[in-house]
Amino acid sequence: MFRKKDIFFKVLLQMAELVDTAVRYFADAVKSDTLELDTFTKEMKKFEHQGDEYTHTIITELNTTFITPIEREDIMELIKRLDDVLDGIEACASRFEMYATNRPNEYIRKYGDVLRRSTQEIKSAVTLLTQKKLLAMQPHCVNLHELENEGDALMRDSIKHLFENVKDPIELLKYKALYERLEETTDSCEDVANTLQSIIMRNS
Amino acid sequence: MFRKKDIFFKVLLQMAELVDTAVRYFADAVKSDTLELDTFTKEMKKFEHQGDEYTHTIITELNTTFITPIEREDIMELIKRLDDVLDGIEACASRFEMYATNRPNEYIRKYGDVLRRSTQEIKSAVTLLTQKKLLAMQPHCVNLHELENEGDALMRDSIKHLFENVKDPIELLKYKALYERLEETTDSCEDVANTLQSIIMRNS
Amino acid sequence: MFRKKDIFFKVLLQMAELVDTAVRYFADAVKSDTLELDTFTKEMKKFEHQGDEYTHTIITELNTTFITPIEREDIMELIKRLDDVLDGIEACASRFEMYATNRPNEYIRKYGDVLRRSTQEIKSAVTLLTQKKLLAMQPHCVNLHELENEGDALMRDSIKHLFENVKDPIELLKYKALYERLEETTDSCEDVANTLQSIIMRNS
Repeated sequence: MFRKKDIFFKVLLQMAELVDTAVRYFADAVKSDTLELDTFTKEMKKFEHQGDEYTHTIITELNTTFITPIEREDIMELIKRLDDVLDGIEACASRFEMYATNRPNEYIRKYGDVLRRSTQEIKSAVTLLTQKKLLAMQPHCVNLHELENEGDALMRDSIKHLFENVKDPIELLKYKALYERLEETTDSCEDVANTLQSIIMRNS
Repeated sequence: MFRKKDIFFKVLLQMAELVDTAVRYFADAVKSDTLELDTFTKEMKKFEHQGDEYTHTIITELNTTFITPIEREDIMELIKRLDDVLDGIEACASRFEMYATNRPNEYIRKYGDVLRRSTQEIKSAVTLLTQKKLLAMQPHCVNLHELENEGDALMRDSIKHLFENVKDPIELLKYKALYERLEETTDSCEDVANTLQSIIMRNS
Repeated sequence: MFRKKDIFFKVLLQMAELVDTAVRYFADAVKSDTLELDTFTKEMKKFEHQGDEYTHTIITELNTTFITPIEREDIMELIKRLDDVLDGIEACASRFEMYATNRPNEYIRKYGDVLRRSTQEIKSAVTLLTQKKLLAMQPHCVNLHELENEGDALMRDSIKHLFENVKDPIELLKYKALYERLEETTDSCEDVANTLQSIIMRNS
């Protein structure tokens, strides 16, 4: 017998895996010296569209399903927060094209690394949610908070370095905006942790 | 007999109409080659003040009225989200003065058009809400999501164009900030759609 | 007899006092012509860490305490909003270091003054909350909304002045970002007022 209510956990898990895949794609791409901009932005856009479809599925199911495994508003909040991470990493990618820059640097690689570790934690935590192992999610949420701190420290370092070394104002403007959007994406990962912790709090 | 609880729908509708009027005023003004900055910013500020008054009325009524036509927190959320659109468009207008620029361009006209179509959808949706035709609101919400995508695509185009063509860093800085604030205002329109969809979900 | 549930009001009040202390430290420091950057940023970071500890205490207590003096979600929301103010003022301080600028100016002093008055209102309002004098909080919330308007007007003045007077794009970029982050912190103070007003609404 197919249990209708399982669709929510299934799609939330698919979304968490998608977020992780998109971030890993980004982190790997920026390891090269020169980005192949066209492929890079197109691939990232595909991940974003897939995320919109998952979000749409969740909304449709919430409107037609009576019983949900956790509160409907928690499901809605969680899919939105996961979508914010996906939108964030896609927005970072699109900035390379907007700013006509195909040169990642060491700092961007470090952001990629923080984000990659963050989405792994997200994937682990959402997997545990779908197994109803709520308390086991807690350490992953703690790690996400620490990774956000790492992201914040990285932003300070990278922007300080920028103002000390880059004298071309337009170049400076570009990388400042890139770094800030990357750091904002680590904030979005932390927001997923906050949402998960609310779910733990209300369900245990 | 005057029904006290109708005040909420009345003021929400007035607010939706005000938001639409303010955005239409903006979209029309930027059609000219040169803005009459003083009049423009003063008019926009008036709309914003009127919005603050509607918001204040809603809060006062919520504090003194026992029965509300929809959940009090939904009313509060909706008036805030509408106010964010109004604050957004006023903030865009004020940037012309802050940055000492009275030259709108083709991109700014396009943002004006996206926003004008968005606030028309908002007005239609809120009208249907006050008529308790909740499901009929859905297509307008879908349109708002599409308009936000249009706004996002427009931001990418306009900023890409900027970095390709404008070599004066201060000029670039000004228009980048203007475009971003305009795009953020299309996000605020989408937030209204999200709020309306939560209301649909909880009431149908 | 120690009453477990009092811990929440106790820590919320300590947090409100910490926010006020941090903002006063900032406002006093920027009165000098030249900032002693190292001490300044280290002290501000200490306040932020202390705030993280209070937030952590609240979360732990919420997870282990059955009876709370107000709704658990209101406690959670309030500590987060207070923490946002603290994060905001620390982020402003850190920008001096990131941008390698140790020169506050008259506008930054004015922001410091608006923020100092805002956190005094916050401290007064939270004190009244812990005394269960909910309606008496209202005027302080009103003042916070007015102070946010003051902050907004100040941002417009300061950025207008910047574009009129500063011709070095990198210098302009630095102060624009500083002013915007300061104004955002006055927004965070207003968000505390909004949270407090929701608490008043739901409890009176």
